[in-house]
Amino acid sequence: MDDLKARYSGARVLITGGMGFIGSNLAHRLLELGADITIVDSCVEGQGANPFNVADIKDQIKLYIYDLRDRGPMASVVKDKEYIFNLAAFTSHIRSYENPLEDLEVNCRSHLIFLETLRKHNPGAKVVYTGSRCQYGRAQYLPIDEEHPFNVVDINGAHKAAVEYYHRLHELHFGMRCLRVRLANIFGPRHQMNHSKQGFLNWFIRVAILQDTIQVFGDGSQLRDFLYVDDAVEAILLLAARDECYGEAFNLGSGKPLSVLESARKVAELTGCSYCLTPFPSEYAAVEVGDLYLDIAKIQRAIPWEPQVDFDEGLARTVDFYRRFGEHYWECEGFESFDRAAAGSSGNPTHLPYDDKVR
Amino acid sequence: MDDLKARYSGARVLITGGMGFIGSNLAHRLLELGADITIVDSCVEGQGANPFNVADIKDQIKLYIYDLRDRGPMASVVKDKEYIFNLAAFTSHIRSYENPLEDLEVNCRSHLIFLETLRKHNPGAKVVYTGSRCQYGRAQYLPIDEEHPFNVVDINGAHKAAVEYYHRLHELHFGMRCLRVRLANIFGPRHQMNHSKQGFLNWFIRVAILQDTIQVFGDGSQLRDFLYVDDAVEAILLLAARDECYGEAFNLGSGKPLSVLESARKVAELTGCSYCLTPFPSEYAAVEVGDLYLDIAKIQRAIPWEPQVDFDEGLARTVDFYRRFGEHYWECEGFESFDRAAAGSSGNPTHLPYDDKVR
Repeated sequence: MDDLKARYSGARVLITGGMGFIGSNLAHRLLELGADITIVDSCVEGQGANPFNVADIKDQIKLYIYDLRDRGPMASVVKDKEYIFNLAAFTSHIRSYENPLEDLEVNCRSHLIFLETLRKHNPGAKVVYTGSRCQYGRAQYLPIDEEHPFNVVDINGAHKAAVEYYHRLHELHFGMRCLRVRLANIFGPRHQMNHSKQGFLNWFIRVAILQDTIQVFGDGSQLRDFLYVDDAVEAILLLAARDECYGEAFNLGSGKPLSVLESARKVAELTGCSYCLTPFPSEYAAVEVGDLYLDIAKIQRAIPWEPQVDFDEGLARTVDFYRRFGEHYWECEGFESFDRAAAGSSGNPTHLPYDDKVR
Repeated sequence: MDDLKARYSGARVLITGGMGFIGSNLAHRLLELGADITIVDSCVEGQGANPFNVADIKDQIKLYIYDLRDRGPMASVVKDKEYIFNLAAFTSHIRSYENPLEDLEVNCRSHLIFLETLRKHNPGAKVVYTGSRCQYGRAQYLPIDEEHPFNVVDINGAHKAAVEYYHRLHELHFGMRCLRVRLANIFGPRHQMNHSKQGFLNWFIRVAILQDTIQVFGDGSQLRDFLYVDDAVEAILLLAARDECYGEAFNLGSGKPLSVLESARKVAELTGCSYCLTPFPSEYAAVEVGDLYLDIAKIQRAIPWEPQVDFDEGLARTVDFYRRFGEHYWECEGFESFDRAAAGSSGNPTHLPYDDKVR
């Protein structure tokens, strides 16, 4: 993609949540394209940030352990950036159900503060915000297009919707440039593997590699829309490179439904493990949305993009990645040396770069 | 309405925001019906609370100056209530645009805390939440029915949407009973008359009574849906009395569009003042939604209700009210004697009843 290289080579890019799953994959791709990359991540445990995700590129990027609410340091970080990929989020539906006020604070309030910081210090930046399918909640029709109402079924969905509104309103009222993406079930390397509260496929893969039995809740017939992370990253970069895409919202998925049971069967087949059906635990049943897959016609009209890695191939690459590097993911390591109170708390942040804090 | 009397006579009712416009009108009606009424209001200046709104009934109700965030005192207030009319809100679109974080705090966070308090201390209460037309934002089609997506155009709308989601999710996840109402342009006595940031009709009436010229922004052609407050109160009470209405959202308006210009003309005609057209100030233009009126078929299927007071009659009653009592509304009085820091702040609330704090 010479097109992307021309656009991003030398571009000053900020990735929030850049030590997490999609953020770190995006960073790797942007580095190939020659971008000047800064990452901020609050490194909250259990949310996806993993030092290993950027260990191989840490000398070629700037990395700061900040929270979006850290106005002062964030002001200095955002001020000269051309592109801002705003990926930071708590993404657990279950956790939001257990602690809605925490979810409000870290999802809504932090993004509102961040947008105010941006408006003040860099209102001309191009901002890409990644929301999610969970904004749609239970489908009124399938596939879900961008006009589908937000029928959220959990607090996290309500807050993701609010944060998308914030981005839209900052365009509308203050002339900022924001592009909103609603992600399907993105999967692939560098996803956290410590718990099953941010999706199930990563958990199936962990269980399979560790040679346990995959447990599928219910009858597993619910359809999902899986997209391999490299394809997601490519689409995000293509969208962000086109001025006419700002001000718009785009679904980002494969558009191809696959059942949860079928995904489990494929993981089992690939790894030689077994799988079984088990009743839904109540906390999962409460946030279950039924079938959910996306209409991707709009994004395909906007950019020349087609998923290149199908589910089977993506799964094979993912399993291979965790077979090689799983030890860095089964228990997230590297956080012990964090001075979290100093590094992550708003109001009293430190500016220490990566190497001083994470080993 | 014997039906309502049977339902509410002796019923223990809490009204949040009960010193404000709709809350105080609701309190008057519930008192006629024989309810046992408790009001809480945080009495934030400029938001609608006015001691005069309940001055004539203050000896027959319990009134507390609490904020929804005051968990301890709110727990004791909610715990034995059968009906909770949750009307407390900051309703200024302009103010939310000027201070989005304040709006997040007082609209979203306060309601989330309040719902958590309710869940803990009175999960079986019947809760009526009043959202607004602003959740719909700019209309994709007219009249707007309850299935219309939320295309919010201001932060206040985003937060009203989030709070409606909170109520819905507390039904869905925790089995609470919540009924959600989306209000059109409700008008009538007891609305604040200090500023034009919560609507325009009240402002037109103030200007007219004080014999100035009504200024209509733009060409005044935008259509609105006006409903007289007594009709709104009756509908809310009928909905809340029907168990089958919980779990649902209902538009509440007249369903009859009237232009802003026409409303100005009617006010002018009634009062003998003049009106003129003037360009939109930018802060109003940013939150202007164009035509907006509601489809009220759903509420009319649910309850035997038809607006009884048309716009002309409602306007005549409203103008008459402010001609008689305007002195209590032109400048909101009675707040000077408040020890606001003690009475209104979360975490350090007082339990002082009305008479000790407001004169």
